Amino acid sequence: MKEFRGRDIVSIADFSRRDLDYILKTTDEIEDLAKRKPDLLRGKTCAILFFEPSTRTRLSFQAAMQRLGGFVLDMSEPRASSIEKGENLTDTIRVVQNYADVIVLRHPLEGSARLAAEVADVPIINAGSGAEEHPTQAMLDLYTMKREMGSIDGLKVALLGDLRYGRTVHSLASALSLYNVKLYLVSPEALRMRREFVELARQRIEVQEFQSLDPIIKEIDVLYVTRIQKERFADPAEYAKLKGYYKVTAETVGKMKPNAIIMHPLPKVDEVAPEVDLMPQARYFKQVYYGLLTRMALLALVLGAL
Amino acid sequence: MKEFRGRDIVSIADFSRRDLDYILKTTDEIEDLAKRKPDLLRGKTCAILFFEPSTRTRLSFQAAMQRLGGFVLDMSEPRASSIEKGENLTDTIRVVQNYADVIVLRHPLEGSARLAAEVADVPIINAGSGAEEHPTQAMLDLYTMKREMGSIDGLKVALLGDLRYGRTVHSLASALSLYNVKLYLVSPEALRMRREFVELARQRIEVQEFQSLDPIIKEIDVLYVTRIQKERFADPAEYAKLKGYYKVTAETVGKMKPNAIIMHPLPKVDEVAPEVDLMPQARYFKQVYYGLLTRMALLALVLGAL
Amino acid sequence: MKEFRGRDIVSIADFSRRDLDYILKTTDEIEDLAKRKPDLLRGKTCAILFFEPSTRTRLSFQAAMQRLGGFVLDMSEPRASSIEKGENLTDTIRVVQNYADVIVLRHPLEGSARLAAEVADVPIINAGSGAEEHPTQAMLDLYTMKREMGSIDGLKVALLGDLRYGRTVHSLASALSLYNVKLYLVSPEALRMRREFVELARQRIEVQEFQSLDPIIKEIDVLYVTRIQKERFADPAEYAKLKGYYKVTAETVGKMKPNAIIMHPLPKVDEVAPEVDLMPQARYFKQVYYGLLTRMALLALVLGAL
Repeated sequence: MKEFRGRDIVSIADFSRRDLDYILKTTDEIEDLAKRKPDLLRGKTCAILFFEPSTRTRLSFQAAMQRLGGFVLDMSEPRASSIEKGENLTDTIRVVQNYADVIVLRHPLEGSARLAAEVADVPIINAGSGAEEHPTQAMLDLYTMKREMGSIDGLKVALLGDLRYGRTVHSLASALSLYNVKLYLVSPEALRMRREFVELARQRIEVQEFQSLDPIIKEIDVLYVTRIQKERFADPAEYAKLKGYYKVTAETVGKMKPNAIIMHPLPKVDEVAPEVDLMPQARYFKQVYYGLLTRMALLALVLGAL
Repeated sequence: MKEFRGRDIVSIADFSRRDLDYILKTTDEIEDLAKRKPDLLRGKTCAILFFEPSTRTRLSFQAAMQRLGGFVLDMSEPRASSIEKGENLTDTIRVVQNYADVIVLRHPLEGSARLAAEVADVPIINAGSGAEEHPTQAMLDLYTMKREMGSIDGLKVALLGDLRYGRTVHSLASALSLYNVKLYLVSPEALRMRREFVELARQRIEVQEFQSLDPIIKEIDVLYVTRIQKERFADPAEYAKLKGYYKVTAETVGKMKPNAIIMHPLPKVDEVAPEVDLMPQARYFKQVYYGLLTRMALLALVLGAL
Repeated sequence: MKEFRGRDIVSIADFSRRDLDYILKTTDEIEDLAKRKPDLLRGKTCAILFFEPSTRTRLSFQAAMQRLGGFVLDMSEPRASSIEKGENLTDTIRVVQNYADVIVLRHPLEGSARLAAEVADVPIINAGSGAEEHPTQAMLDLYTMKREMGSIDGLKVALLGDLRYGRTVHSLASALSLYNVKLYLVSPEALRMRREFVELARQRIEVQEFQSLDPIIKEIDVLYVTRIQKERFADPAEYAKLKGYYKVTAETVGKMKPNAIIMHPLPKVDEVAPEVDLMPQARYFKQVYYGLLTRMALLALVLGAL
């Protein structure tokens, strides 16, 4: 679509429902397209510029670009060394765009992707900035729900775990609010989603908050699990107590509707019991594959190949 | 060969002599084949997943995949960071197989490659696990002997140096025991090969142990040198003494048969004197090239392209 | 050109004016050529072997090789780990040339690239060695001057900043001395260019030294800015004082001729004020693109594709 050519993907809030639906439709088609046209992005270069470690997201974009016949330049600096040395992001972007037709950026600072997009002549894809934005993750989450459940409208979706510090859940709640869903936020008191995000979603859809899955476990369609990180707690005993409380086990799954699904942005540690991996409700590894398709679609769109 | 398609390469012990001969034959042909069909693995992706540093082996697999027209995803984490963070190998494999058609794994833990192979839907190639397994190194060692000496059967092969901690020599001794060779194990008392490996080899071939090369230097066909690492010794004086004793110099080579060859898995430090590098018996850099060919053959085989 | 096939690029001093002119001409043509023949280097592999961190130069060579359809093997060891472990560069080169048709090397030791070139059967491109050599940077600097100013002959060029420790300026001064230029060296007393380099240039062209831009700012055609590094000063107060003195601001640019240009090898920190980036004289980001073209030309030449 013409209006995607050259477009930055900075914040999920920049996308209308019509935009998102178009991305979901393109993602549906990209697998076949890549088989028919494996050289769709031939001669195009994608620079992967990560100032935070993230093996999975990095690999996902690398694989997406290669499967469409494009080149990848990987410029990963897990220790954010160049920032510490005093170089500025603006210069880095102005240099890298000489080598690449699109830049995928991950950066620890809020607003960094927006700044990069303003400076760059090539499209910027935000692969995570600060604590609030991870738009391509939200898009792949939507795609997983649509593909696995048939439609996003009408779903009851529970977000579980650390809803305060996880950038994934903020982008996802924002995206879901464009659809006709009921959103349940389930977290410990200390890890509740920030008020402004909750209020924003409430302007459009029904949002309820809980401290336990029990009241809603039987009715939800999608259980979206996130990790609770030890570092978030001053008191280790508090962490130990809560951790177990938000763990998804075979017993949890047993209470869910048979056709409900479990998602997770990964990596998971022990918030999902190993036996759940093999249950049909677990879709988080499929979600990884859908992420690959979503990123293929996004790269093809912003590079104007579709 | 059909029986190699999708096959894991975990342990040299999983391969029969017939298997190994087939791999050697394929390696002989792969160079020409790659010239005729540079796109043999077009559209296939190889993920290189290393939890230990190993520039050489990593480069070898990268080059092998590229020369056959395939893509490489490099996911190297030298500090094994994700393991330390509590993520498990099982999840990593389940994620990465969404991006790749084959996974090359190096991991410090014994049994890790076997575990990965059980979990994965795509073939796993073990590029070194624990202290005992490095099957592709053993295969390239066999190929070097066959190509440089004409045949493996009938050879007298000496393994020299640290036979206790080196994963290379364990896989190689196992592989050689399928051929009609005489095996000489030459090491300091403290670095003798573990009993179970020696006994296993002895069930099939003649194995003799020595603490010096002197008794056999004149009759051997292949001298396979390995490095003695300082870290293995509590007493530095003991190390200093032994190190010199197991060093291969021009004098050592002078005693060997003129058509005997010297091999080394590399990197070498000072266990081979620099002047030896230029002597015709030194074949360790050729061995590197044969390693490239062997890995090309293995990738093509397990991906079902042959 | 036949005489470039297989040629090492170790020191700018190895190149005659005729050589450099040929490289500049090839660089002029490579952009079109790459569009017409995107597979010019198909099947060729370039190994990037960096023993010092340098994201930019690394990316530049990666992108150059890929744009001509070649493969890249990236073997970056920022902590020079293998050197510390006692492995020698000679062995590394002998291993890597089994995988690659050309090796791009960056190494902290003076003379390392020359040593590598002597050992290697494939061409070596020096991407920075010690404090004195960075020939491909000098070539791209020349190309930038030629392309932006029409001709190098007749230019008045000022090198500003740290002329003592920067490897870039040494190679550049040497290259410029083959053209009919006036060279102004502007630096603090403590950071003057070493005598032997100055004397060498003076044998061929007019070279004047200054401690301030003021006397020449109105007449120069090219202002080549380099960073003054804090680490070079024992006394932080001395650094603080000098730093400001050698900073290029809008006021500095206001005094320059309207068609003069500002160059910089990048990364820059604060030796150029941000407002200068947007002024028409600033050409350092264009310089990055010309660097890509120059490296494409060099790779194509030494690999014998032209």
